[in-house]
Amino acid sequence: MATAPSRAASRTDNHAGEGTRERILDVALRLFAEHSVAGTSLQMIADELGITKAAVYHHFHTWEELLSTLVEPAVEEMRALVDAAAAHRTPHGRAEHMLTGFVDLTMRHRRLSAILSSDQAIARLLKAQAHYEELVERPLALLGGALPDPAGRINATVALSGIASTAGNDLLGDLDDDTMRKLLIQTGRRTLGLRPPRTPRTTS
Amino acid sequence: MATAPSRAASRTDNHAGEGTRERILDVALRLFAEHSVAGTSLQMIADELGITKAAVYHHFHTWEELLSTLVEPAVEEMRALVDAAAAHRTPHGRAEHMLTGFVDLTMRHRRLSAILSSDQAIARLLKAQAHYEELVERPLALLGGALPDPAGRINATVALSGIASTAGNDLLGDLDDDTMRKLLIQTGRRTLGLRPPRTPRTTS
Repeated sequence: MATAPSRAASRTDNHAGEGTRERILDVALRLFAEHSVAGTSLQMIADELGITKAAVYHHFHTWEELLSTLVEPAVEEMRALVDAAAAHRTPHGRAEHMLTGFVDLTMRHRRLSAILSSDQAIARLLKAQAHYEELVERPLALLGGALPDPAGRINATVALSGIASTAGNDLLGDLDDDTMRKLLIQTGRRTLGLRPPRTPRTTS
Repeated sequence: MATAPSRAASRTDNHAGEGTRERILDVALRLFAEHSVAGTSLQMIADELGITKAAVYHHFHTWEELLSTLVEPAVEEMRALVDAAAAHRTPHGRAEHMLTGFVDLTMRHRRLSAILSSDQAIARLLKAQAHYEELVERPLALLGGALPDPAGRINATVALSGIASTAGNDLLGDLDDDTMRKLLIQTGRRTLGLRPPRTPRTTS
């Protein structure tokens, strides 16, 4: 089956190797969403792109290298977000920053969010790479900090997993990104027991 | 690797065939949680039980039959729950019944909930079997009914997916079931914008 030109491919430079690398990642993400990571083979990725398995191996020497490269940008953003949120003085400020930043992050990486929030193979990889602490433990602590445990932890887990699954949900594809972003933040605030900020960010 | 006696096996009768059938389902559920459905083979299930693939096929003629049998009890409970919730007069009554019933259901089927809420292979099967309407569409409509769309739908999706993932989350395994059940209902009410019921159910 022919693949439509991907966003990744359209923004590549003239270096053909880089273009293929980006296309492999783009196709992998789409196949993971459809078949799960465990249900996707390197052969399926190669077939979809009309290239050989050897050509895929040229860009990613192992399956783990491909997975790591795929999650790396989101992991970096999450690390920066957690640090920025942790710098606030109050538990409410930390939770509010973590919530709005997490919604923005999931909206920028919608397909990846759906996979990260649900796929056991990806979860195992992140755990093995010691990303688990910054991707799950620290965000949960920051989000749930406005309430004592265990209520804070349950709220935070529902908010984190609920937002990630909802942002990646195809059933809601008819909502424009800006509306979904605002609604996810509102829902997240209620879930976490956070009062809305006094000064609205937009005055529309 | 030897398998500890499962709960399913311990409550089986003396009919050896029934016992094996239950043990296959129990092991399948555990392997699905660990490796995803796509990452689990019939051979892995057989190996784990120390039986042959033919013995597994004797009980379940196809992979789809095994998956269907596994989800059937939860699907039946969900169908009954949705009908009972839909019978309430008000949107608030319908959402409250659906929420408390859904939390109870996920707590009764914790491992299955984690898989149902995340595994693409199971989601595809349920869609193919036309269970999608009653398992996803009707619950979302009942849960979100207290607010107009799209806010109601976003709230409902966050609540449904958040509760299912949280109930199946190993990280929260140290909470006893009753505490988790109460906290999930409280969090769910806030997420959905439902006021707490006037008469508390317990007075502790």
